[in-house]
Amino acid sequence: MAEKLVGACIIGQSGGPTAVINASAYGAITAALAAEEITQVLGADHGITGVLEDKLYDMGLEDPAELAYLKNTPASELGSCRYKLADPDVDDTDYKRILEVFQKHNVRYFFYNGGNDSMDTCDKISRYMARSGWDCRVMGIPKTIDNDLFGTDHCPGFGSAAKYIATSCMEVSRDSRVYPTGQVTIIEIMGRHAGWLAGSAALGSYFGAGPDLVYLPERDFDLEAFLADVERIYKEKGCCLAAVSEGLHFADGTFVSQAKTSSTDGFGHAQLGGLAARLAEIVKERTGAKVRPIELSLLQRCGAHLASKTDVDEAELAGRTAVESAVAGETGKMVAFERGSDNNGQYVCKTILLPLSAVANAEKKVPLEWINAEGNFLTQEFIDYALPLIQGEPERPVECSLPRYAKLKKVQA
Amino acid sequence: MAEKLVGACIIGQSGGPTAVINASAYGAITAALAAEEITQVLGADHGITGVLEDKLYDMGLEDPAELAYLKNTPASELGSCRYKLADPDVDDTDYKRILEVFQKHNVRYFFYNGGNDSMDTCDKISRYMARSGWDCRVMGIPKTIDNDLFGTDHCPGFGSAAKYIATSCMEVSRDSRVYPTGQVTIIEIMGRHAGWLAGSAALGSYFGAGPDLVYLPERDFDLEAFLADVERIYKEKGCCLAAVSEGLHFADGTFVSQAKTSSTDGFGHAQLGGLAARLAEIVKERTGAKVRPIELSLLQRCGAHLASKTDVDEAELAGRTAVESAVAGETGKMVAFERGSDNNGQYVCKTILLPLSAVANAEKKVPLEWINAEGNFLTQEFIDYALPLIQGEPERPVECSLPRYAKLKKVQA
Repeated sequence: MAEKLVGACIIGQSGGPTAVINASAYGAITAALAAEEITQVLGADHGITGVLEDKLYDMGLEDPAELAYLKNTPASELGSCRYKLADPDVDDTDYKRILEVFQKHNVRYFFYNGGNDSMDTCDKISRYMARSGWDCRVMGIPKTIDNDLFGTDHCPGFGSAAKYIATSCMEVSRDSRVYPTGQVTIIEIMGRHAGWLAGSAALGSYFGAGPDLVYLPERDFDLEAFLADVERIYKEKGCCLAAVSEGLHFADGTFVSQAKTSSTDGFGHAQLGGLAARLAEIVKERTGAKVRPIELSLLQRCGAHLASKTDVDEAELAGRTAVESAVAGETGKMVAFERGSDNNGQYVCKTILLPLSAVANAEKKVPLEWINAEGNFLTQEFIDYALPLIQGEPERPVECSLPRYAKLKKVQA
Repeated sequence: MAEKLVGACIIGQSGGPTAVINASAYGAITAALAAEEITQVLGADHGITGVLEDKLYDMGLEDPAELAYLKNTPASELGSCRYKLADPDVDDTDYKRILEVFQKHNVRYFFYNGGNDSMDTCDKISRYMARSGWDCRVMGIPKTIDNDLFGTDHCPGFGSAAKYIATSCMEVSRDSRVYPTGQVTIIEIMGRHAGWLAGSAALGSYFGAGPDLVYLPERDFDLEAFLADVERIYKEKGCCLAAVSEGLHFADGTFVSQAKTSSTDGFGHAQLGGLAARLAEIVKERTGAKVRPIELSLLQRCGAHLASKTDVDEAELAGRTAVESAVAGETGKMVAFERGSDNNGQYVCKTILLPLSAVANAEKKVPLEWINAEGNFLTQEFIDYALPLIQGEPERPVECSLPRYAKLKKVQA
């Protein structure tokens, strides 16, 4: 049994927002408010930058009913940041300041919700506090639509983004084939290094509506093979829907989004369109077909109206588990998910704790064997992996049929 | 009481698809199957082109349970077309062929679901049949996300697209302000000539999340005023979300999407990015801010998962009314909507019939007095107009938490 540690806690959000990062905040905030060891629950404005600026909100002053709306409010409600802490051996200015703020508010618990970089931040703070003798428990809460965090079966945020992507691709697949004249449609999906999100486009295809082709950044992109795939399907069906990951790159590592085309060569068009626009232009040049590029852009990461109940519940669970584990004595860990099945063979998810140092800066990609031999679609293994994560429709509070988001007072502590 | 007219009917879909055009097809098909005067219910493959090719499906052979899924299936399930019939006085080839197909199947009722151009097609067929002595009743069913059909308070398809746009803008408004560094986000919304859809982006703003600025094509676009608006809000709030209609044009009529910028001048970039990408580049040049363009593209017109129940119900009503009115003796009319209120002051919608000739090729724009004096937002009148049209969540059948669409057999007659 760990020693009882009494004091305030800080909860911070970091990195790119998701549809459910606020559900994790809700889980952490409510668990912290309920813990007798925790004397004050502070929300950091814009993550670690709010700590550095001593801009902290007293979450205990919020209306509990408003806090509950966090479960369905997309994007980082406390504000996020992409601030990278220096190596403390090189420059410990920020760390001294963090310690000062921790001491001022008697912060004994620090919960940080983010992806790879945020777990690195978390790890550095954890080590610094240990070294400086300030008794403080530091826990990471995973988050990323990219699903590329190491050591966890999946990440909160992925399931909802995957559901948004799969549903949108199903709808577009219906829309893009209504005319007898035919059309090639290219949908660009987020994911610089890992293809989990682009792969999710294939979920709908298993239910009769979705892309014909899906390309992931785990494989080097072969432009000629891509054009041959598109031409073949366009000839067969009169239309073709291809989903592409923004991170597609050639064998030499250059991004396909920067590929030159005959009409753009040398004029620096790269800044204007993304990958889908670029590929659309190439396909149009080659096939003469009507081509429509679509970029899901921010929509895919904030699509809370299509959130997965499984994802919302697990995000909340991750936040709650971080707090409860820290109160029980854990520190320097990230909450992670382990997949299992119940007696009926149904998906179940349980939490485990991983050392922050093992998670920070590592990256998990789609296994190559989950991509088909042609490199243009996903195998059943991918579908079996992703499908349980998009299940269920959460309660979705509305006001005049539009989403009702949390309205926090954000009273500075 | 009109003479009883017995024979087959044809139902066709035309123009750009919507989230609810299949709900109108469902209303028309089920009413026709129930009408004893109608001996066979035929669905035209790809609208009028399916009639010309005698490619007609026997809708009586479909499973009624599958037909019911049409209410939640986006895009034109029978296939659409953009085929424009010639003036019959100049070239009556197509009309002769249509008459031939009508006679072959004893078609006495023709229902055509579409926008401006489709009502013109409908009108021409109606007149030709009357002139040629083939007793056939022709009715138009309105449809367009653009909401620009003349003579009707609103159009089936608009409410669902408006709800998708409003909700997406609310989500993006949350996502685009999470970082302390700030961002200008520009969302491009469909509508070449009328700003009903772009205006709908403002709905969320009245509930605390949505664009700061909205620009409609009903007003000439003033680039300097736009840049000043964006800079002012960006300075005030640290971020700015502007919704722009794809149809924005300068006073001389040229589309803003073709505006030249210093880095693109003369190199023909126009084909690559749309309006949002263009404006983003200009804003970035001017302000140095991080700018993100987002194009809602096809997503906004096929977003059935966010359909308005009001819209789905009214779309079905329009289809059903067309059939019932024709059976009762009407011809040469389009079903239109009239807005009223019940004893509690609540929105009610009733159907009226308008002569096709009065609707065809006319266009209804957003009244200028519903745009604020600065030309950068909507007035309360617009909100009061649009809000009732997005109300209610329809039943949304799912399979493994993904949409379950209609699977029709499409047996050729």
